[in-house]
Amino acid sequence: MASSATLPTLHFSPKPSTDSSIGRSETCNLFLRFRNHDLVSRRSFSVSFDSLGLNRSGTPVLKFDRIRSKISASSAQVMEQSPRKTDSRVPTIVDVDLGDRSYPIYIGSGLLEEHDLLQRHVHGKRVLVVTNTTVAPLYLDKVINALTSGNPNVSVESVILPDGEKYKDMDTLMKVFDKAIESRLDRRCTFVALGGGVIGDMCGFAAAAFLRGVNFIQIPTTVMAQVDSSVGGKTGINHRLGKNLIGAFYQPQCVLIDTETLNTLPERELASGLAEVVKYGLIRDPEFFDWQEKNMQALLARDPSALAYAIKRSCENKAEVVSLDEKEGGLRATLNLGHTFGHAIETGFGYGQWLHGEAVAAGTVMAVDMSHRLGWIDDSIVKRVYNILQLAKLPTTPPEIMTTEMFKSYMAVDKKVADGLLRLILLKGPLGNCVFTGEYDRNALDETLRAFCKS
Amino acid sequence: MASSATLPTLHFSPKPSTDSSIGRSETCNLFLRFRNHDLVSRRSFSVSFDSLGLNRSGTPVLKFDRIRSKISASSAQVMEQSPRKTDSRVPTIVDVDLGDRSYPIYIGSGLLEEHDLLQRHVHGKRVLVVTNTTVAPLYLDKVINALTSGNPNVSVESVILPDGEKYKDMDTLMKVFDKAIESRLDRRCTFVALGGGVIGDMCGFAAAAFLRGVNFIQIPTTVMAQVDSSVGGKTGINHRLGKNLIGAFYQPQCVLIDTETLNTLPERELASGLAEVVKYGLIRDPEFFDWQEKNMQALLARDPSALAYAIKRSCENKAEVVSLDEKEGGLRATLNLGHTFGHAIETGFGYGQWLHGEAVAAGTVMAVDMSHRLGWIDDSIVKRVYNILQLAKLPTTPPEIMTTEMFKSYMAVDKKVADGLLRLILLKGPLGNCVFTGEYDRNALDETLRAFCKS
Repeated sequence: MASSATLPTLHFSPKPSTDSSIGRSETCNLFLRFRNHDLVSRRSFSVSFDSLGLNRSGTPVLKFDRIRSKISASSAQVMEQSPRKTDSRVPTIVDVDLGDRSYPIYIGSGLLEEHDLLQRHVHGKRVLVVTNTTVAPLYLDKVINALTSGNPNVSVESVILPDGEKYKDMDTLMKVFDKAIESRLDRRCTFVALGGGVIGDMCGFAAAAFLRGVNFIQIPTTVMAQVDSSVGGKTGINHRLGKNLIGAFYQPQCVLIDTETLNTLPERELASGLAEVVKYGLIRDPEFFDWQEKNMQALLARDPSALAYAIKRSCENKAEVVSLDEKEGGLRATLNLGHTFGHAIETGFGYGQWLHGEAVAAGTVMAVDMSHRLGWIDDSIVKRVYNILQLAKLPTTPPEIMTTEMFKSYMAVDKKVADGLLRLILLKGPLGNCVFTGEYDRNALDETLRAFCKS
Repeated sequence: MASSATLPTLHFSPKPSTDSSIGRSETCNLFLRFRNHDLVSRRSFSVSFDSLGLNRSGTPVLKFDRIRSKISASSAQVMEQSPRKTDSRVPTIVDVDLGDRSYPIYIGSGLLEEHDLLQRHVHGKRVLVVTNTTVAPLYLDKVINALTSGNPNVSVESVILPDGEKYKDMDTLMKVFDKAIESRLDRRCTFVALGGGVIGDMCGFAAAAFLRGVNFIQIPTTVMAQVDSSVGGKTGINHRLGKNLIGAFYQPQCVLIDTETLNTLPERELASGLAEVVKYGLIRDPEFFDWQEKNMQALLARDPSALAYAIKRSCENKAEVVSLDEKEGGLRATLNLGHTFGHAIETGFGYGQWLHGEAVAAGTVMAVDMSHRLGWIDDSIVKRVYNILQLAKLPTTPPEIMTTEMFKSYMAVDKKVADGLLRLILLKGPLGNCVFTGEYDRNALDETLRAFCKS
């Protein structure tokens, strides 16, 4: 959508300050008209200018080779239809704006064939690819080729971990350190996470801790990782008593999303990722939620344009939140809608029994139910959430094994507990609004737990 | 030395800007004359002004309750004798200047009785003290008392680890996470490291990784930890293949050094810490080295003033280096003089066989020997280094078990290797000068290894 090839008409407001802008990024409101369809959308873009010229009327014209888009939730227009296919190899770029730790998210089909994209983010001459037994046979050779093609100085090691949430633990993490140290990797190396959320979280934490920090790149291959976990620098492992309790905030050099990798994704994994897509709509992007309601079948059918759009829009939401609150002082916690209930399900039911997104889906229904019991949202929202998750073939109730006591026990070790008080993300007001709060009637929580648990 | 009680005569140059200085810190050159002896020393101090008055001649006088000192290596005069005892409960404060992650190092005798000092740096209501089986019987109750005295809202948990370098591993680290999670500590808690370098490094890394980062405080109880490892935020654990290969840069809220804790320190531990004190003299502070040569007996005899001065001066050196290069882009690596050889000894000989400072001492002699073989330093420096380490009763050769091949193998996984090239800290030029470089004649390294190893 945002590749320069599709942008024939651009009007900046306010006008960038011409020559002083060269080589810098500026945020402008950009009115754009796509060549291929009629939509006109006002969006806030960050544009990096490469050179300055004059057009025929003598007006300064800034030239750029790519646009880095940032959604402006209040003003964004959402397409009623997916954009028509353009040159898919031109990546859409979403920036995560974190000062000197900023990085791009590249989104596109076939990006693993664009070797330069990956190679420009490799530091040093040694690379360690961290992947798992499921993904390695599918994409490891392709990634090694992308790293080394035309680049013979780079050597690549790989470590293949067992697949699944239940291996997201310290013992498995140590295998990454073992491999890195036995291979004598030094600080000028790059770790590459190739896989889903578990691989991304573990590889990222290993990169954060190996020699007190080396570079890393995320190549997410699941919807879950592409729309959520690969972006924003949350890394870590589980403890037997709770999810993601040990880790680091550590940002990658880039996130490279090749949407073609979704062609091999199991149905259940696909649906799991959509739980996080739904989340963005609920907490901050109601137009996106509208779009999802209309396009859920296309997403489940793996319509490439629909998936690409959902990924891009999700990354934009995530990047914006992370840029505003990297270390989860408050706002970022809202990305955890449904996750406190969901983590309790994952821990209580056993890691890997349900996929993360499945647990989040049930958790989201519970958080929405509780929001409604508190009188904070309309009944219509409850119904829409239930319906869209059903449509996505996701669970809307926790597994039968979960009791109210199990929920309470596992929720008590949630990272959002502060001075003993459990804070939750709850919807409040019209669709697209939420709060992160410890100030709620405890009875509502009890009632929700009782409503969803048999004991 | 720097408590206000000892400073009757102060002349600032340039003069602080009077009323606009109140409540701010300014760096001034301060000519000071101690009441108790005749030394006049020009030092660069950062002074925080509390109020403004006028002296009899109408000159504005800024009042302050403490001086934060920063050594100015080029101009520092070193006392020929230790200052006489003043009110030891007034802490000397050395600042580690890292922007919004700056923190104070408090140095003084009996500071564990100054409860406010500790309590002002505790975040939240829950504290986890991490200590070991040796230190716990001596100081744990005292620290718990310091944390809770007059402060009944704070509750303290503790975890007591086995003592020794060989336990600085992932299995032992997991005990800290287990305790923290079982105690349901949340992000608003504070970890306190009570012990030597191993405890400080492990507790710091646990604090960095628990819930992706909680606050922590260092209470070092060994010379090694007080002069070096507790300052600067290097945290981590060992891997069976190498020292400190897994960790994080993570800064504490404060470092509280109660020099009274050294009264219980074994002789061997005392000497081990002095290896790092010697290091500061060699790499950047020749006057301090002169002072050490004259005062080594006093240090070994635990003369409180001599120890306090050595700790303060070491912390000043460390703080200055860390402030300039927190993440070890270059300068900070110089603090590792002798450590590459030393780490090889520790790993090859078995963690805990030798104390860290013992290995560093032998490693320092080797680095100095190599510097001399390269023609970079005079023979006189080699002799002075050998003599001062002998005087400190520290080893000056590696254990006999170490072969040249063992050195090469363990040194190859050192964190200072970059793109396969081993970089070393070597002395070059007059005493107090060193380089961090990969550009040296490999023969010199081979010759040094052959000179110190039997095979």
